[in-house]
Amino acid sequence: MIAQTPHPPYFAVIFTSLLTDNDDGYERMAMLMEELAKEQSGYLGIESARSGIGITVSYWATVDAIKEWKNNLQHQVAQKLGKEQWYSAYKTRICLVERDYEL
Amino acid sequence: MIAQTPHPPYFAVIFTSLLTDNDDGYERMAMLMEELAKEQSGYLGIESARSGIGITVSYWATVDAIKEWKNNLQHQVAQKLGKEQWYSAYKTRICLVERDYEL
Repeated sequence: MIAQTPHPPYFAVIFTSLLTDNDDGYERMAMLMEELAKEQSGYLGIESARSGIGITVSYWATVDAIKEWKNNLQHQVAQKLGKEQWYSAYKTRICLVERDYEL
Repeated sequence: MIAQTPHPPYFAVIFTSLLTDNDDGYERMAMLMEELAKEQSGYLGIESARSGIGITVSYWATVDAIKEWKNNLQHQVAQKLGKEQWYSAYKTRICLVERDYEL
């Protein structure tokens, strides 16, 4: 699903990752985190795809909403498991969405 | 591959798309465009994944570099074919990358 976000400006978190071979439990946790993210204040939408690398882009109304989500206790547990077990590498980029257009 | 981008600030173009059933020639054009993008002034990197939706994020040094790439003649031909044939929907978001961190 292409996220139905409001008019810019708003914020995007681009999370790009490579999984290890030991990815038991990853898919289930990713789904749980997506559901949990949707309940957060300031959440605007999410887009996710994986083929080789995984790219998940979540959209947020403010930088504070991003910080709150990063510090969410259940999300912290998922992040810890991700660093220890699931991800061989990742990169997170915090962005201001300045313009958008669509077909 | 996770793109090896410089320290922020820099720019990202998040392109999210859904393909039609009539996607003959799409994969080849996508590869050509990726190769062509790499030759552009101000290009910093690209990340791409597709599973259901496609997400391609390209990274650029300046907004002008993004505009030049959008207006590149070969890229214009690809964009036209995309609108007419390959994409049932897409959304493009132009972003300022303010911060990043990685594992």
